[in-house]
Amino acid sequence: MTKGLFITLEGGEGSGKSTQIERLKERLEKQGYDVVATREPGGTPEAEKIRDLLVQRDGGRWTPMAEVLLFFTARIMHVEDLIKPALAEGKIVISDRFTDSTRAYQSAGHGLPADQIEAINALCLNGFEPDLTLILDIDPKTGIERSLKENQTGGTENEDRFEKLDLRFHENLRQGYLDIAGHEPARCKIIDARDGITQIADQIAQSVFDKISAR
Amino acid sequence: MTKGLFITLEGGEGSGKSTQIERLKERLEKQGYDVVATREPGGTPEAEKIRDLLVQRDGGRWTPMAEVLLFFTARIMHVEDLIKPALAEGKIVISDRFTDSTRAYQSAGHGLPADQIEAINALCLNGFEPDLTLILDIDPKTGIERSLKENQTGGTENEDRFEKLDLRFHENLRQGYLDIAGHEPARCKIIDARDGITQIADQIAQSVFDKISAR
Repeated sequence: MTKGLFITLEGGEGSGKSTQIERLKERLEKQGYDVVATREPGGTPEAEKIRDLLVQRDGGRWTPMAEVLLFFTARIMHVEDLIKPALAEGKIVISDRFTDSTRAYQSAGHGLPADQIEAINALCLNGFEPDLTLILDIDPKTGIERSLKENQTGGTENEDRFEKLDLRFHENLRQGYLDIAGHEPARCKIIDARDGITQIADQIAQSVFDKISAR
Repeated sequence: MTKGLFITLEGGEGSGKSTQIERLKERLEKQGYDVVATREPGGTPEAEKIRDLLVQRDGGRWTPMAEVLLFFTARIMHVEDLIKPALAEGKIVISDRFTDSTRAYQSAGHGLPADQIEAINALCLNGFEPDLTLILDIDPKTGIERSLKENQTGGTENEDRFEKLDLRFHENLRQGYLDIAGHEPARCKIIDARDGITQIADQIAQSVFDKISAR
């Protein structure tokens, strides 16, 4: 590979993205690939400052559009300072969330017009998209139950605001992700996240190796 | 007045905006008007968090587009949480900087395409502009000398990065402001900032009372 591969994992609450990113990173490294695992919002010092404004309890009450601008501010810094340089060195970059999260959460979930998000996306990233997006699909009830369990055992950061949203929101979110996959079948693959961790990891690894072979 | 009046003061380094905003506020209050003086980036708790990212030494190294998004994030919060509510109560709002600063600094100064800034502006503020913009015009050399003097006496916040820019930048900035005034003569008035403080205050007050009478 002279140019790296940019992979994103997407999905709602409790879809198991973090665990799967660890597994995928291990598998790829065993095969000799140089892998960078990162996350959104965040991944660089500047983008992590923005993350603090978005996910902390006292980070601020933002309007939906202000929130979108903050996500894209963080994303610009993430792309310019981390993702593009790593890809230029031939690395595989795996990001926990990317632009599809803004599409799913802010548009399908919170109702901001999709064309406004795409207009900002075009101005900020000029068409930059992942090579492969794995959407971990799970019905919202199961996902939220899993997510609450994880938080009780202290396994994840305390991101209160993302959890307080109601079931209807999570159903819209799920549909948003399915619609993205429907519109971009060459980039997106839906993974059934009800399966066991190892089965899911196998499916993900298979999709990634297929993408590598196809290049 | 059933609807308030939104006035902005614009200008480069050392143009004397802060002093003139104080003077204008005093004069209007003496006439019985309810006045809110505010500033950008900032003016609300959320927008001040963004200000910290933009003006502090350790606030972050942002790309030009990321910087524009941060200014508009702060501006959305400022407009929604402070400016519009105050105008709805019939108040006069005076802001130290607004969208023209982004036009002048980020486009005329730093070279970001003007149409990109206008596209983001349209998405974020939907055409919301000041009723009256007073542009304090001064040649950059005089302005920078004045600004450095003020900082030595500890009169203003330590905003290092705004001062390190070279003379050419400040000349482009000045031309940017003159172009804005040329395109929007009904909204913008250029004030000669070389005059004495009281003379400038008189000119500004006159422009504001003219605007009030015309409504």
